[in-house]
Amino acid sequence: MNLYSGYINQLIDELAALPGIGNKSAQRLAFYIISMSPERVKKLSDSITGAKEHVHYCKVCQNLTDTEVCPICSDPKRDRSTIMVVENPRDLAAYEKTGKYQGLYHVLHGAISPMLGIGPGDIRLKELMTRLQDDTVREVIIATNSNLEGETTAMYISKLIKPTGIRVTRIASGVPVGGDLEYIDEVTLLRALEGRKEM
Amino acid sequence: MNLYSGYINQLIDELAALPGIGNKSAQRLAFYIISMSPERVKKLSDSITGAKEHVHYCKVCQNLTDTEVCPICSDPKRDRSTIMVVENPRDLAAYEKTGKYQGLYHVLHGAISPMLGIGPGDIRLKELMTRLQDDTVREVIIATNSNLEGETTAMYISKLIKPTGIRVTRIASGVPVGGDLEYIDEVTLLRALEGRKEM
Repeated sequence: MNLYSGYINQLIDELAALPGIGNKSAQRLAFYIISMSPERVKKLSDSITGAKEHVHYCKVCQNLTDTEVCPICSDPKRDRSTIMVVENPRDLAAYEKTGKYQGLYHVLHGAISPMLGIGPGDIRLKELMTRLQDDTVREVIIATNSNLEGETTAMYISKLIKPTGIRVTRIASGVPVGGDLEYIDEVTLLRALEGRKEM
Repeated sequence: MNLYSGYINQLIDELAALPGIGNKSAQRLAFYIISMSPERVKKLSDSITGAKEHVHYCKVCQNLTDTEVCPICSDPKRDRSTIMVVENPRDLAAYEKTGKYQGLYHVLHGAISPMLGIGPGDIRLKELMTRLQDDTVREVIIATNSNLEGETTAMYISKLIKPTGIRVTRIASGVPVGGDLEYIDEVTLLRALEGRKEM
């Protein structure tokens, strides 16, 4: 449809290609961007190219960073004996927001999924194994998602690490805090039951 | 929170400032953009600055365009005796997609809203009145939204145009096609009743 001018169409197409942005949202965003001040448009566009240009994986934990080693890995106050393995930087952010975890992280950038053809070689596992070679790490906490891919990945990593003698743990799965039992799926309810603890 | 690097934070902030994009979506989008190929990132960023640079209001109908007069206004096949008044370019697009309306448009870029302090001088009404000065226009169809602001604007425009002798009409309001009466609000139901037609 040649409703809009070429420039508007191009912007709508580019926006609609982003995840979670449908055609209608892309239209609304495009019109909004056109209505913004030239300064704000420049800032938006610069922030996009700037992030792409300067952000890369941390040499150690594979999290996104614009320094060679990310702020968490280079923080001397963090506990270097524990590594929490997460699927992606958003999961790392979620745990980091709790403010309670003091160890390091390792970002896999994905999970093993035979369905999608993602094997152990496609995620950053080799880098994790390299980190375990010196003797500082005593525990690896696997915090992959609680779905089929996440569990498969957890199982795979656990089997890989066990022979090294390093402790491997998995974050608990159960009823979320504030969750109403009535609305929680059966698998979660069973997990919560299995994982019950003495009071 | 200094979780991410400066460049990532800046991108997240810029994205979160767009309408309909919350902090979580901004994060997801930022990580996605960083993972895109450099070529796609450049295309996205260029489409943003390009649209802002080249897109402006059509001299005639005030729709967004990158030519002096938009493709609709300059199309010799369109019926120049009818102007449909809409609030914004998205509404124009919605009618244009029907493929049935052959007249011209006029985009107000807003609606009168005493609540938000938007008066008749803040929308593109003056430009509409200028267009009505020659004798080609015989009907103005008011297609502002069917809410308080839209109705107020419709009423105001109607009063303004009536003295010129040009026919002023308002698009019908009633039950949407495929709509289930049970789920439709009372005001719409009453409108549909008032607007009933002989079968």
